[in-house]
Amino acid sequence: MIAPLPQRAPGQRLARGVTRHLLERGFASLCEYVPARGLRVDVIALGPKGEVWVVECKSSRADFTADRKWQGYLEWCDRYFWAVAADFPQDLLPEDTGLILADDYGAEVIRMAPETPLAPSRRKALTRDFARQAALRLQHAQDGSCQVGA
Amino acid sequence: MIAPLPQRAPGQRLARGVTRHLLERGFASLCEYVPARGLRVDVIALGPKGEVWVVECKSSRADFTADRKWQGYLEWCDRYFWAVAADFPQDLLPEDTGLILADDYGAEVIRMAPETPLAPSRRKALTRDFARQAALRLQHAQDGSCQVGA
Repeated sequence: MIAPLPQRAPGQRLARGVTRHLLERGFASLCEYVPARGLRVDVIALGPKGEVWVVECKSSRADFTADRKWQGYLEWCDRYFWAVAADFPQDLLPEDTGLILADDYGAEVIRMAPETPLAPSRRKALTRDFARQAALRLQHAQDGSCQVGA
Repeated sequence: MIAPLPQRAPGQRLARGVTRHLLERGFASLCEYVPARGLRVDVIALGPKGEVWVVECKSSRADFTADRKWQGYLEWCDRYFWAVAADFPQDLLPEDTGLILADDYGAEVIRMAPETPLAPSRRKALTRDFARQAALRLQHAQDGSCQVGA
């Protein structure tokens, strides 16, 4: 189900390093999560106190400049980060967002994102949906012949 | 990671049928979930509106009578069910609990469990923990070399 590392897209490889680092911080991550129709975030992570972080992984200048949707992700998290490799031109990235340096194996938070707390109702709905999506994917991974569509 | 069907314990085979049926009802399931120290439920499931169901799978009379903890599970769900195979002696089971008939491939709710809604604070904490556990297990399944211990 999961492609070997060299066959994965650059953004997916960054996401792997990011999720490993987030795990060290006590955050459980879900990749390619759809918070609302038309939006898909690379990594969403849920912290021990219910904190929601979103991380967009950008592999190149072109990858960043083609992204017209990222501002729409801000309202779906408490903190928003970019994750890039060491050779990415960091001055492209807005200063009032978080910055993570990542590779295939790990990552480091270079600039903590400012906190803009979710409204309680949205946090509740988002946490519930995160829970259901994660469990459905796990069930699909473990029992591939059952239909995941709930 | 997942044993072939014939090698799984009878309770795990019932759980497979149960989780498939719950999926048809729109519930995302997690098996062998620990809601609190010393408690482990066979199946916990989260419905589209945030409903929490717990299902204990019993493969035999002995399996049922050895269970000294099930009443402790009631306070961790909105509805509580037993899941058994067709040849299980159903008159053993308390009448004020739900009843599901299950096999390896599916299940059916024979008696709906009464509803005893969770307090909002417990539902919130339980949903968050469900979310984190499901995502951590998924991450472990997909990226086995990372440490899951958050």
